[in-house]
Amino acid sequence: MGQSLLKVLFGDPFAVMNTIGLLAFALVGSSKAIREEFDLLGITIVGLAMAFAGGATRDILVTRVPLALQSPIEISLGLLGVGLAITLSIVLTSPDTHPITLLADAIGLAAFTTTGAIVATEAGVSAFGVVTIATINAVGGGAVADILLDRSPFILFDDFYASCAVLGGCAYFLATVVGVSGGTAAGLCAVVTVLTRLAAVTYGWTLPTVQGLGLVER
Amino acid sequence: MGQSLLKVLFGDPFAVMNTIGLLAFALVGSSKAIREEFDLLGITIVGLAMAFAGGATRDILVTRVPLALQSPIEISLGLLGVGLAITLSIVLTSPDTHPITLLADAIGLAAFTTTGAIVATEAGVSAFGVVTIATINAVGGGAVADILLDRSPFILFDDFYASCAVLGGCAYFLATVVGVSGGTAAGLCAVVTVLTRLAAVTYGWTLPTVQGLGLVER
Amino acid sequence: MGQSLLKVLFGDPFAVMNTIGLLAFALVGSSKAIREEFDLLGITIVGLAMAFAGGATRDILVTRVPLALQSPIEISLGLLGVGLAITLSIVLTSPDTHPITLLADAIGLAAFTTTGAIVATEAGVSAFGVVTIATINAVGGGAVADILLDRSPFILFDDFYASCAVLGGCAYFLATVVGVSGGTAAGLCAVVTVLTRLAAVTYGWTLPTVQGLGLVER
Repeated sequence: MGQSLLKVLFGDPFAVMNTIGLLAFALVGSSKAIREEFDLLGITIVGLAMAFAGGATRDILVTRVPLALQSPIEISLGLLGVGLAITLSIVLTSPDTHPITLLADAIGLAAFTTTGAIVATEAGVSAFGVVTIATINAVGGGAVADILLDRSPFILFDDFYASCAVLGGCAYFLATVVGVSGGTAAGLCAVVTVLTRLAAVTYGWTLPTVQGLGLVER
Repeated sequence: MGQSLLKVLFGDPFAVMNTIGLLAFALVGSSKAIREEFDLLGITIVGLAMAFAGGATRDILVTRVPLALQSPIEISLGLLGVGLAITLSIVLTSPDTHPITLLADAIGLAAFTTTGAIVATEAGVSAFGVVTIATINAVGGGAVADILLDRSPFILFDDFYASCAVLGGCAYFLATVVGVSGGTAAGLCAVVTVLTRLAAVTYGWTLPTVQGLGLVER
Repeated sequence: MGQSLLKVLFGDPFAVMNTIGLLAFALVGSSKAIREEFDLLGITIVGLAMAFAGGATRDILVTRVPLALQSPIEISLGLLGVGLAITLSIVLTSPDTHPITLLADAIGLAAFTTTGAIVATEAGVSAFGVVTIATINAVGGGAVADILLDRSPFILFDDFYASCAVLGGCAYFLATVVGVSGGTAAGLCAVVTVLTRLAAVTYGWTLPTVQGLGLVER
């Protein structure tokens, strides 16, 4: 734990992004469960599922024991995010759609895209593997949270959500190809992801449906 | 197989709890599928999914090939539980809500909480890891069964279900910390889990919702 | 990539079946998403999920990094299948129920049953393990696609779908037991699976429900 804290203080890109992502996604996941009037256990489960499901899937894909089960600080950060969501739900109405939550979601998306890209690159997978693991790390938690809430995962409908993670993952891979430092690649990945996400929310970017393209008879 | 049977006879805590859990959860899962009028294949899939999904997730989390795929006796026990459910469905009306099924569910919950705690402790994860893997082992099967049945996992709504596994997992960890034998810790974990679960069902224990606490405007 | 292509040309059973399965299931998965009017990203995600989820689960079960994340050709084949589905949706009405799609689904089912049986046998699991991994490899993608589409997985309702994979997996195991070559066992597995599936679709084979057997009061 101490070591992890030191890493954060000294700016290890993975530790910084992982800390930000855990707090942000636990907050967002819990807010969704509060909206659905789940009990405190359900709120905690959905919050922790959103915070850890993406990273656990990433770790399983590179065949290592999920970090969350090895480091106490990880769970503490997740529970802190759950507490923040409950606090927000007291001071805000419909916290799950409040700008603070939307911002937290965009920040979490960017942070986890970056952690995924870092771990995948260390695991030595293909370019497709880096972008895929970065995207799964970023959107996996939200998808699991939605499945727990018995909804069709919103990532399939919100066009510029997973797309932002894909763009961020590509940015990270390209940055490493041109040989910049890991910290620079991580920062670039996070900035590309969060800016494209915020722009998508602000300007309502969408991708066309096949029907929308007028290619298919409705 | 012979070795596993011997282990059961000689009281290896993992083998005993694993045998009980597989029979109990295959029975409960199949009963849910029978209620939904699934066909025999669907009944078998849901029963085996409930029996094996939790343990398989536990094994994947500690990066080992799921026991169920290596030992023939595991599948035999699962299929036996499916057969028991079909037999029960013939002699009982609404077997999925019958006291026998509720008792089997509580016993399976306790047995799998214990197997999860044993495997996690052997894998040397953190205290949070032990409780988390014990809980996932215990409730994972039921959650997967519900998702296969296209329901929102009941563990999110039935307050004192996953909570009992969390309590049992904590009991196991604390018992090992104070240095009792593995068998004693396993027994304590199982007793704590099954008693809290039966008490919760009997007395209708619930956890408050944030709304219930009057903290949020409905 | 070149190596994989050579393997295909020289008839490595795994490479041949894997190529066929990826194309077929990406096509089928994308067609389902087009039917649901998902956007292009959603169509791609569901198509790739159906193509890769089964194989990725198989690889995780035998604790190895999923092939799809290591070989660029795998993703290329998945994306090609997605493109085929979009093309089909332009030239056909309701492509997801068109005979071409049903045939592609049966071929994909047979191809992935075979790749699952090959990998499981190499991993040295039990007979039950070989049949289970073959079946999970075959039906896992479709189940994940349905969950993403927020449906109860059709494999639980379409009686002779998973059943065909189980029969194919048993055929592969028995063939290896009697000592035929891997290529022959693979061919036998694929033929048994695709023929039983096509016969099931053609003749509307079903398995009885417990209710159907008249064993339970409705």
